[in-house]
Amino acid sequence: MKRIGFIGLGIMGRPMSQNLLKAGYTLTVYNRSKGAAEELASAGAKVAGSPRQVAAESDVVITMVTDTPDVEQVILGAGGVIEAAREGLVVIDMSTISPKVTRAISAKLSATGAQMLDAPVSGGDKGAREGTLTIMVGGPEAAFSDCLPILQAMGKKIVRMGESGAGQLTKLANQILVVGNMIGVCECLVFAKKAGLDQKLVIESLSAGAASSWSLVNLGPKAVDRDFAPGFKVKLLQKDLKLVLSSGDELDLALPSTSAAHQLYNALQAAGSGEEGTQALIKVFEQLAGLR
Amino acid sequence: MKRIGFIGLGIMGRPMSQNLLKAGYTLTVYNRSKGAAEELASAGAKVAGSPRQVAAESDVVITMVTDTPDVEQVILGAGGVIEAAREGLVVIDMSTISPKVTRAISAKLSATGAQMLDAPVSGGDKGAREGTLTIMVGGPEAAFSDCLPILQAMGKKIVRMGESGAGQLTKLANQILVVGNMIGVCECLVFAKKAGLDQKLVIESLSAGAASSWSLVNLGPKAVDRDFAPGFKVKLLQKDLKLVLSSGDELDLALPSTSAAHQLYNALQAAGSGEEGTQALIKVFEQLAGLR
Repeated sequence: MKRIGFIGLGIMGRPMSQNLLKAGYTLTVYNRSKGAAEELASAGAKVAGSPRQVAAESDVVITMVTDTPDVEQVILGAGGVIEAAREGLVVIDMSTISPKVTRAISAKLSATGAQMLDAPVSGGDKGAREGTLTIMVGGPEAAFSDCLPILQAMGKKIVRMGESGAGQLTKLANQILVVGNMIGVCECLVFAKKAGLDQKLVIESLSAGAASSWSLVNLGPKAVDRDFAPGFKVKLLQKDLKLVLSSGDELDLALPSTSAAHQLYNALQAAGSGEEGTQALIKVFEQLAGLR
Repeated sequence: MKRIGFIGLGIMGRPMSQNLLKAGYTLTVYNRSKGAAEELASAGAKVAGSPRQVAAESDVVITMVTDTPDVEQVILGAGGVIEAAREGLVVIDMSTISPKVTRAISAKLSATGAQMLDAPVSGGDKGAREGTLTIMVGGPEAAFSDCLPILQAMGKKIVRMGESGAGQLTKLANQILVVGNMIGVCECLVFAKKAGLDQKLVIESLSAGAASSWSLVNLGPKAVDRDFAPGFKVKLLQKDLKLVLSSGDELDLALPSTSAAHQLYNALQAAGSGEEGTQALIKVFEQLAGLR
């Protein structure tokens, strides 16, 4: 059984690493702040002093951090994974970051004999806790096959999308859908409100048919109840939308809907809602409608 | 068992009326062109010479025609339903039309002692054939309860949304969601194409998670396969979007997403795709992306 290292024990990384422990894997963890690492230690994980040490003591290193520079730091920075990289090591980055930077990191790891998979996830903290994440994977096929049991301990739908970067690109495609659906939900709910309809009843009656979406069913009721607690935070969605839009720029690709969504979420952040869940977008639509 | 009249035997009305026959109802039908009526006659329906005659021989009259003026014509026009309207008659309009005109027609029928329900549907010709339509109902509660078994012969999810017009308004809310989702699907699929991903694999991997929608699962594969045969025709969606936008105007409501969708569908109609299915919108996004 492969020895696993886990770097980044945040809202996603903590439950994901706990699922690996439950599946019986030996785990060495590293986290910038110590609290989360100690929690994992009490569940049986070993705590390392640096990403380099994690890599030295593992066959597979998983990184689950916030943004592109964080991944560059823990893999390529001083005391980083690359300092202990060697033939046989597989690095699985499950963060959502730039596909272009992913390919660059992958190339640098390859030069040491190590291999890299990009394997961002969707499904939120709920999917992380329940081990039902969707995992979109890019990178070498053999490394994917070797690591599939590990991914299966954290996710349910696991698909190899292509070579390095393809996982990240698929995650960005995911976010395009997510904001398209969310804009529809917000516009629909504000229309319902102004039209004098019962918003909850509208959600209920439309959830069974051709207008349905995960967002309508799961986030629509929260928006109506003004429950803005994050599943997925606005500021993290915005980070992802910037990645989508800069990939669009690189591809000469017009993304009118995602671009508009990003601007509307900017308005939401201006209103101080960056730490709220993405369903808080309803507030921007309510303002446009003169409802607040 | 109530005697039912059915006016409008098009792509939706034909299978809906056949489901009423299967459920054991006595049916009197009327259609502008004779072919569809004869088909129903051979299945056991009586054919009437006018909407008035349908109403005279029925306890409940269902109208399923294309647009607002068509409903006005068959109910209020010469030889229309209203000429045989009386206490005890219920008119159920299952077309998608103006909520405002619906209320006006309902008021005129009320003056004769008859009652009206607006009960537009979603689920397309497939839902009509399989009797699995979602039916969104506005109008008097007692008439709704009386007619529920009739609606259940045609649909699965049947919800009374409020007084007259509330069914139509809910259908418009449905269309707001439908185009929000569809724009997300088109933008996602074109992104996937330009990013070098396998579009079908993207649909498969994202259909299980937070990005999923009915449109992604059902229309995404058709768009990829360039199967533009209509489930739901672009020109009929455009008719509905005009109703949404004019309701928005009446309500002083900004509908940025639906408005943009309507304009993009105008571009699609300009390219000659009015008779194709709504998934043909992918062609506009492909042109924006320089893919055609």
